[in-house]
Amino acid sequence: MRLVPLGGLGEIGKNMMAIEYGEDIIIVDVGLMFPDDEMLGVDLVIPDITYLMDKLDRIRGIFITHGHEDHVGALPYILPQLNFPPLYATRLTHGLITVKLREHRLLDRANLRIVEPTDTVRAGKMEIGFLRVNHSIPDAVAVVIRTPAGTVVHTGDYKFDYTPVDGIRADIGGFARLGDEGVLVLCGDSTRVESPGYTPSESVITDTLDTLFSQAKGRIIIATFASLISRVQLAVDLAVKHQRKVALVGRSMVNNTQMAIELGYLHVPTGTLVAVEAINHIPPSELVIVCTGSQGEPTSALTKIASGDHRFIQVIPGDTVILSSTPIVGNEKAVSRNIDNLLRQGADVFYQGRAQVHVSGHGSREEIKLMLALLRPRYVVPVHGEYRMLVQHARVAQSMGIPAENTIVAQDGDIIEASAEGGISIVEHLPSGNVYVDGLGVGDVGQVVLRDRQLLSRDGILMVVMTVDSESGEILAGPDIMTRGFVYERESEALMGAARNKVIQAFHVHSQNRNRNRSADWGFVRNKVRDTLSEFIYEKLKRRPMILPLIVEV
Amino acid sequence: MRLVPLGGLGEIGKNMMAIEYGEDIIIVDVGLMFPDDEMLGVDLVIPDITYLMDKLDRIRGIFITHGHEDHVGALPYILPQLNFPPLYATRLTHGLITVKLREHRLLDRANLRIVEPTDTVRAGKMEIGFLRVNHSIPDAVAVVIRTPAGTVVHTGDYKFDYTPVDGIRADIGGFARLGDEGVLVLCGDSTRVESPGYTPSESVITDTLDTLFSQAKGRIIIATFASLISRVQLAVDLAVKHQRKVALVGRSMVNNTQMAIELGYLHVPTGTLVAVEAINHIPPSELVIVCTGSQGEPTSALTKIASGDHRFIQVIPGDTVILSSTPIVGNEKAVSRNIDNLLRQGADVFYQGRAQVHVSGHGSREEIKLMLALLRPRYVVPVHGEYRMLVQHARVAQSMGIPAENTIVAQDGDIIEASAEGGISIVEHLPSGNVYVDGLGVGDVGQVVLRDRQLLSRDGILMVVMTVDSESGEILAGPDIMTRGFVYERESEALMGAARNKVIQAFHVHSQNRNRNRSADWGFVRNKVRDTLSEFIYEKLKRRPMILPLIVEV
Repeated sequence: MRLVPLGGLGEIGKNMMAIEYGEDIIIVDVGLMFPDDEMLGVDLVIPDITYLMDKLDRIRGIFITHGHEDHVGALPYILPQLNFPPLYATRLTHGLITVKLREHRLLDRANLRIVEPTDTVRAGKMEIGFLRVNHSIPDAVAVVIRTPAGTVVHTGDYKFDYTPVDGIRADIGGFARLGDEGVLVLCGDSTRVESPGYTPSESVITDTLDTLFSQAKGRIIIATFASLISRVQLAVDLAVKHQRKVALVGRSMVNNTQMAIELGYLHVPTGTLVAVEAINHIPPSELVIVCTGSQGEPTSALTKIASGDHRFIQVIPGDTVILSSTPIVGNEKAVSRNIDNLLRQGADVFYQGRAQVHVSGHGSREEIKLMLALLRPRYVVPVHGEYRMLVQHARVAQSMGIPAENTIVAQDGDIIEASAEGGISIVEHLPSGNVYVDGLGVGDVGQVVLRDRQLLSRDGILMVVMTVDSESGEILAGPDIMTRGFVYERESEALMGAARNKVIQAFHVHSQNRNRNRSADWGFVRNKVRDTLSEFIYEKLKRRPMILPLIVEV
Repeated sequence: MRLVPLGGLGEIGKNMMAIEYGEDIIIVDVGLMFPDDEMLGVDLVIPDITYLMDKLDRIRGIFITHGHEDHVGALPYILPQLNFPPLYATRLTHGLITVKLREHRLLDRANLRIVEPTDTVRAGKMEIGFLRVNHSIPDAVAVVIRTPAGTVVHTGDYKFDYTPVDGIRADIGGFARLGDEGVLVLCGDSTRVESPGYTPSESVITDTLDTLFSQAKGRIIIATFASLISRVQLAVDLAVKHQRKVALVGRSMVNNTQMAIELGYLHVPTGTLVAVEAINHIPPSELVIVCTGSQGEPTSALTKIASGDHRFIQVIPGDTVILSSTPIVGNEKAVSRNIDNLLRQGADVFYQGRAQVHVSGHGSREEIKLMLALLRPRYVVPVHGEYRMLVQHARVAQSMGIPAENTIVAQDGDIIEASAEGGISIVEHLPSGNVYVDGLGVGDVGQVVLRDRQLLSRDGILMVVMTVDSESGEILAGPDIMTRGFVYERESEALMGAARNKVIQAFHVHSQNRNRNRSADWGFVRNKVRDTLSEFIYEKLKRRPMILPLIVEV
C-alpha cells in the first residue's frame, strides 16, 4: 500500500493525499492554501499533481472530509485535470462544493455523489467508509480506507466536542470499534498538537456571546468565517433569544448560509432575517449583523465597515463588534487595523484576548492522544501541519508506546509504503512544489517570476532606453531613464541627471570597444551600461533596483 | 504643559515624546520601528520630527529610558537634525548608544552624558529625575519630569521583577514616594495590557534552561536578541554550571556583549569564552553557542545555521537548539521555517509553546495597575502600543477610579495640554507620519514610491518600446515588449506575440488620429497603447501589471 501526500505535510493548507492499493488510487481532499507574504501577487496556491497525471485511469474516486477551503478549494482547478473522477462527500460538504463548481461553470461536468456517514463505497479493491468527527463546520467526517493489506484512517480536521452546537457528537464508539478491528495506518490532524490539554467546546462561546448580547445597548456586529456555520447558528439563536433581527452581510456569508438553510444545516426562524438594505429601518438595539472579515481580508464586509467604505453599514457609536475568530498567522496586522479603526469611530470591540469569542476547530494534544488510544494504529503518519507539528505528533505517538520506526514524519511528495509485515518507510521523494494561481493563470507564475516580483518590491525598477544609429553607432535619442518604485523622480532630478551622464559615458567607452572588437555586440554594451548604472546607484543610495537597459538600433 | 507624542502611540515601536513647559522642551526616547509587510523595501521607520524643526533652540535635552532599538534606534538619523542636543542615559544605555553612533561616524559630534538613576538634571524650568524599572535589558529607568505645573512620569518599558537576573529590582519605594508627592500625568507602557495577571520573572527561565542543559547530550545553541543581556547572562551562568564553554556568534551579539562585559553588566568568568572559529576543537557536550536570529532575521546567525549557510557552524544531529524569544508579529513564518530546517537536520528544537524559554519584558495588566496604584496620577496618557491597547489601558485606569475625562487616548502627532486646574485634552493634531529609511535615503521613499512597489510586487511590469520616425510617424523599430515579474516569457511566446500585434494595431489607429487632430500628441498615442494592452492582458489573464509604453522619436 502506498500513501502519497500531495499537500498539507509541512504546511497548513492545501490538504491532499493519494492512497494506492494495487492498481487502484483514491484521493482524500483537494484543498488550497492562501499565499504567504513571499508569494507576491499570487491569489491561491494549489497542490502539484504531476504524480497523478500518468495514472488518471487508476483513480477510483475523490473523498472529501469537510467543506473548508483547505480541503475543497483546489477542486475547480484540479477536477478538470483529473477528468472529473467520482467525488464523494456528505450533504453539507456536497452543497458547498456545488456552490463552488457552479461559480466556475464546472457543475455539469462534475460527477458528485452524496454519502451518508454510514455508507460504504467500493473503489476497486478498496472499500471506503466514514466516521463522524466534530469540527467548526457540520457534517465533517474521517475517511476509513479498508484494503486487503489493512485499514488506513484519515481523520481530516477533527476535535471531540461533547456539547457541539448542532448536537451531533464525533462517533467515538465507531473509532473504538475500528480500533478493535485493527488499524494499519493513522493519518491524523496535527494542527493543534502544540496546545496542551483539550480544545474547549464550541458551546463555551455561547456563554461569552450571551453576556455580550445582554450588555449591548446598540447594534451587535459579529464577524466570522462564512464557512463557520455553527458560529452563525449561535449568533442566530442568541439574536432570537434577545429579540433581535439578523442581517447576513458579505457575498460568501450570504451564499453559504443560504445553502446551509436550504439543506437544513442552519435553522433560522421565519421573520428573523432582514436584508442589509433595510437595516437602517430597525432600531440599533434590535439588530445583529453577521458578516465576513474576521481575518481583516481587504475586500470583506468588516474591513469596509471599519474603513468607512461599506455601502449600507456605517459604524454608530455604541455598536458592539465581536471578532469571533483568531487571526491566522500573517493576518495579525490587518485584523489589528480593523479593531483600531472601529474603536476610533466609537464602537466597542471584543476579540480573542479580551473575551473568549473563539475556540479552535482542531483537537489539542490530549484529543490527539484520545484518537491514538481509540484506534491503536500500527503506523502513524501525521498530516495537516508545519513540519515541527508533524514531528511533535510523532513524538506524542511514541510517548504512547508506538515504536519510533512506526511513525513517519513525511513531506509533500514523499511516497510512503506500508504493509503489516514490511513496516512503513519513505521509498521515494518526488519533486513536488506549489502551483500558483494568479488571476486566470494556473502554474504560469513560477520561481523566476516570483523572484522578479520580490526584487521589484524591494527597490523598484529603472529603465534606460536609447536609440542608436546602427551604422555609425551614434546616439539618436535618449538615454531616457524612467523609474517606478525607486525614488520620487520629481524630487530626485539631480540624481537622475547624474545617472543619465553615467549612462552616456559608459555607452561611449564600451561602444568604442564594441567597434574595435567585432565579436562583441550591443548586448555587451547593454550589460556594461547596466553594471555602471547599478554601481552608481548603489554608491549613492545603497539600493539595488532592477535595471533594464534597452538599446534600439535604427 | 504640553505633551507631544511623535511615535509609539498607535503602534509598537519608534517611541518618542516631546514634553514642553513654557519655552523649554525635552524629549524622551528616539526609537525606530521595523517596517511591516506593506512598507516594501523599507529598512527602517523613524519618527516624523517636523513639529520640532522650528523649535530646535528650545530643546534642553534628550532622555533615554533604555537601550533597545525602539527607544534609541532613530538617534543616528534624528540627532544631526536636532543639532545634537545633550543626551542623558544610564551607563549601559550610554554604552549601546556609543556603539551605534560610532558605527554611523557621529560619535565625536554627539553630546552624551551618563546619569545615575539618583541624579537630577536641570532642563530650563524643568527638573528631570529617574527611577529604576525592570525590563529585558539592565539599567532601564522611568523618567520623572518635574515642572512648576506638576510632575510627569514617563515609565518607558517596564515590568516589576522581584527576582531579576541582575538582582536589581524596580524602585517600588521610589514610585510610592512619588505618588505621595503628587503626579499630574502618567505616560505608561501599554504593550502587554491585554495579558491578564503578572508577567513571570526572568528567573523562571532559569529552571527551564537548567533542565534543558542537564538533558542535552550534544551542543546547545541558544538564539536570542543581542540586546537581551540578562538572557545572555543566564546562558553564561548555566554554561559555567554545566562545564561548557561559550561561543558568542553574530555581529550584534559580539558587539553588545563585549560592551556589556567592559561596562560590568555581563559577568563571564575567564576561560569561558571561545572564538567561533575554534568551536570544532571542542567536544559537542562541552559547548554552548549563543547567537542572534531568534526572530528568523534573514542574515542572522541562526538563519544561516538552519539553512546550512553558516561559515563555521553546521547542524550536528543531537544539537539542542533553544529559541529564547517569542516571534514578533510578522516574523512567525520566518521563525517557523528555521525551526523546520533545524528539525530536518536532526537537531532537537525548543521554542515558546514547547517549553517556557522566554518571558516578556513588559508588565501585564496587574503590573500596570500596580504602577497606577503607586503613582495615583491625576491624568493618564497610555503610551507604547497599538490603538486598541491604549484604549484598554485607559479602561484599566478608569476601573481604578480615574475619571474617563482624565484619561487620554492619543495618537502620534496629537498635542496634549494638561494643567492641574484646566484638565487634560488634545488641542491640536499635527499631520504626523512615518519617515522611511531605505539604504542611505531618509525620507525619499514616500507613498508614491511605496504604492508603485506594491503594484510591481503584485503583477510585475510590462515595458513597451517603439521607435518612430518623427516626420512620417512610421514605426522604425519595435515594438519590443519586455516583462519582469509578469509571466515567464519563454513559456508565453504566443501571448507576447498577440500583445505585440495589439500594440501595433492600437498604434496605427491612434497615430492616425494624432495626425488628423493636430492638438493630440505622442503622449495621447502612448496612453492609448497602454490602455489597449492593459485591457488585453486583463481579459486574457485577469491581471493588472504596470504598463510602461515608450515611444522614441528620431
